[in-house]
Amino acid sequence: MEAPENHRAELSEVIDAIAQSYEASSPLNSGGGFPLPSREIVKKIIDDLEAILYPGYSGSEDVPTEYRRYRTAEHVVDVFEHLSSQIARSFRHECPGVHKVCDDCHSRGQKQALTLLRKIPKLREALAGDLQAAYDGDPAAKSFDEIIFSYPGFKAVAIYRVAHELHRQGVPLLPRIMTEYAHTVTGIDIHPGAKIGRSFFIDHGTGVVVGETCVIGENVKLYQGVTLGALSFPKDAKGRLLRGHKRHPTIEDNVTIYSGATVLGGNTVIGAHAIVGGNVWLTESIPPNTQIVIEPPRHKVRSGREVSALRYVVDYEI
Amino acid sequence: MEAPENHRAELSEVIDAIAQSYEASSPLNSGGGFPLPSREIVKKIIDDLEAILYPGYSGSEDVPTEYRRYRTAEHVVDVFEHLSSQIARSFRHECPGVHKVCDDCHSRGQKQALTLLRKIPKLREALAGDLQAAYDGDPAAKSFDEIIFSYPGFKAVAIYRVAHELHRQGVPLLPRIMTEYAHTVTGIDIHPGAKIGRSFFIDHGTGVVVGETCVIGENVKLYQGVTLGALSFPKDAKGRLLRGHKRHPTIEDNVTIYSGATVLGGNTVIGAHAIVGGNVWLTESIPPNTQIVIEPPRHKVRSGREVSALRYVVDYEI
Amino acid sequence: MEAPENHRAELSEVIDAIAQSYEASSPLNSGGGFPLPSREIVKKIIDDLEAILYPGYSGSEDVPTEYRRYRTAEHVVDVFEHLSSQIARSFRHECPGVHKVCDDCHSRGQKQALTLLRKIPKLREALAGDLQAAYDGDPAAKSFDEIIFSYPGFKAVAIYRVAHELHRQGVPLLPRIMTEYAHTVTGIDIHPGAKIGRSFFIDHGTGVVVGETCVIGENVKLYQGVTLGALSFPKDAKGRLLRGHKRHPTIEDNVTIYSGATVLGGNTVIGAHAIVGGNVWLTESIPPNTQIVIEPPRHKVRSGREVSALRYVVDYEI
Repeated sequence: MEAPENHRAELSEVIDAIAQSYEASSPLNSGGGFPLPSREIVKKIIDDLEAILYPGYSGSEDVPTEYRRYRTAEHVVDVFEHLSSQIARSFRHECPGVHKVCDDCHSRGQKQALTLLRKIPKLREALAGDLQAAYDGDPAAKSFDEIIFSYPGFKAVAIYRVAHELHRQGVPLLPRIMTEYAHTVTGIDIHPGAKIGRSFFIDHGTGVVVGETCVIGENVKLYQGVTLGALSFPKDAKGRLLRGHKRHPTIEDNVTIYSGATVLGGNTVIGAHAIVGGNVWLTESIPPNTQIVIEPPRHKVRSGREVSALRYVVDYEI
Repeated sequence: MEAPENHRAELSEVIDAIAQSYEASSPLNSGGGFPLPSREIVKKIIDDLEAILYPGYSGSEDVPTEYRRYRTAEHVVDVFEHLSSQIARSFRHECPGVHKVCDDCHSRGQKQALTLLRKIPKLREALAGDLQAAYDGDPAAKSFDEIIFSYPGFKAVAIYRVAHELHRQGVPLLPRIMTEYAHTVTGIDIHPGAKIGRSFFIDHGTGVVVGETCVIGENVKLYQGVTLGALSFPKDAKGRLLRGHKRHPTIEDNVTIYSGATVLGGNTVIGAHAIVGGNVWLTESIPPNTQIVIEPPRHKVRSGREVSALRYVVDYEI
Repeated sequence: MEAPENHRAELSEVIDAIAQSYEASSPLNSGGGFPLPSREIVKKIIDDLEAILYPGYSGSEDVPTEYRRYRTAEHVVDVFEHLSSQIARSFRHECPGVHKVCDDCHSRGQKQALTLLRKIPKLREALAGDLQAAYDGDPAAKSFDEIIFSYPGFKAVAIYRVAHELHRQGVPLLPRIMTEYAHTVTGIDIHPGAKIGRSFFIDHGTGVVVGETCVIGENVKLYQGVTLGALSFPKDAKGRLLRGHKRHPTIEDNVTIYSGATVLGGNTVIGAHAIVGGNVWLTESIPPNTQIVIEPPRHKVRSGREVSALRYVVDYEI
């Protein structure tokens, strides 16, 4: 695009000033000139993986069943190519002195991508369990198709399960880019490091946070706004955050946690078959088979004419 | 894309294993080979409908008023074509033995699409009311244009109103795909089955959930994080969820519900002109003209030097 | 697209009815035929600005460092062109009688776009501080790159800082379109009018609302679901909302506010170094160095066999 004649000089100055700011030391400059992963390509990988995991639900054309193998092969080769290169770039990112993807990172990328692809049948089994859990857990669900097409909880869990496998394989950076893509699309923030058992269902989902070191059993159900978070961040002798230890709770099998509940702390265990009611606030363990609900907040009520007159005034001081 | 020579055999194995997993019985396989709706085309339909409902706000070119009829005609024909085919596919989805869209589904699709298009002038009247309600309800709103361009609450309600009409017409699947698209973009989750009166406004909106069987009157205002949800899920004699009965609350005319409030249960009625304060938790009805706020949670406060030293330690156990 | 023969007459009627509805007076019609900003182009501007602010993180190709100046120049010229035209259209929007962008708006657009571009080095300094704050504040963060690539809080703050500068320059409409784009992508809703100091970090972020007249100091950290909102909306003698006065709280330096906390009111001040615990509800000021947490809500607990039998029944009435 041509800059209009009368602002060419000003734009040139602006460009110089910006280029100069790239010379200064800044944490923002770490990416400059090195091959880094690309969010656009990560999105393509996820689209292709979804087409492989539940064929027939994406794209706008019909694919007759007899052509399905051919179409699957295309998606698999695409995922292999893109995933290999993005994993290689993620490994490169851990060698800060290296300014290109070297042979070692390249072949590690290919190896890791193949390892992930070999897990697809197992991932499909896990997702079939999650799908059944969604259907069994929500009376508004009319069909499996509706859940695959439209449930944010199902999408977030599918992307998490792929990202978690890459995380387990030791791939840096990329798994988090994947789950944060899911966060953008669904409002559900699951760290790829969390460990989550079979038949997991999140309904509605906006605002859910599942922290890095959570351990979640089988048949667990969460509703919107649930936080499984950290209670405090220990520091080392120099006052720097300690990274990597267990900071988030353990949720045992068959637990249901209702909307807006908060469960905090690495030593907090929610026992099997427990029910945690909406808005509950837990920083300590509860035993199995426990049902815990809040005593509703004390309300102040004012009624009659008086209120009618006040009806557009919000006054929490009454 | 060509797979690199040295991994062709491995990829071939991977593709075989995945194709084999498609043969097994799995709820994930329901979509294979059948014509299903497409999320991409649903997005196009919504874009075109928005261009029809409030002309001039979408797209990047100017359209002089004199050409507007021509442009509208293009959008209407596009919506007709796409909506007909997506509705037909949604009907096909309810005939599980049928592997293509038959003549009956095809002509039902066209009929239903026309029915929806005939409602556009009425939908525009409803949206004009919602727009005025947003302007009247938010001191941060500077103009109608700002609301149409940028308010997630307005967008979510517009898409809901279209989806609700399709739901009323008996179209399966598609309405939910539409409202979940809105959920993705806005963080606001309104089930297309909910009944919502005129002049409805949701401010900020992230985390709002409006359940399938809600009934909401006129001039109702919700803030972010409000849940209008279910209290319990009755089951049939075999322990399966009962689907379809009223599980969500009724909100009468002129009610305002502030951020983070939760109202649960199919028998819960919030009377006309009531004000429900932030974080209120209601599982029972309140009469008209009532103002209900929480008594703020009891706080524990620690102050002075001591805290200053502790200031990066989160300790809920004090 | 050709309408099928047998529905041409019906579609023609539909188009006439819609065109007729455009003639009526409606707040939805304000956009018709006038040059308005375009959300698509605003998205392009933000993409280009991100490529300028932290080079190397967007796009899918490698750009060797030696070509970076050339690539930056392209992005800067693109931003200048698009931003000039969108600002001009935003000014036009304030001259309701004018049906095209006149010379005055056009040259104001160019001037304002240059002013913004000249601030890029300063904006980069501010974002470097925000990036460091994110790294220091989250033990799950493994590198700066991970934060730039994937943290919604960082993205929302970056877009806010650009939008806030345009807001300060007096550009109408456009800043809000920018921050609501960020809201869509991140679930974080920061009004461009808010004033926010250096080293600001929002973790997880879904559901955060920062109102128009907030004043936030340096080194402030917020978690998901925090509302910094208004307490009441004063009206003028005619009952219309008063717009523009301070309705939202002041948060002083070094404050941390945990998930789900609500702080309301234009006179509410959270003193420096205060810690506001999760789910706290504040409508009054607290002094510096205060630590305030909720006394956890009283819980009702039911345990043992009884619950096991009840485990799928949600019953808040126990």
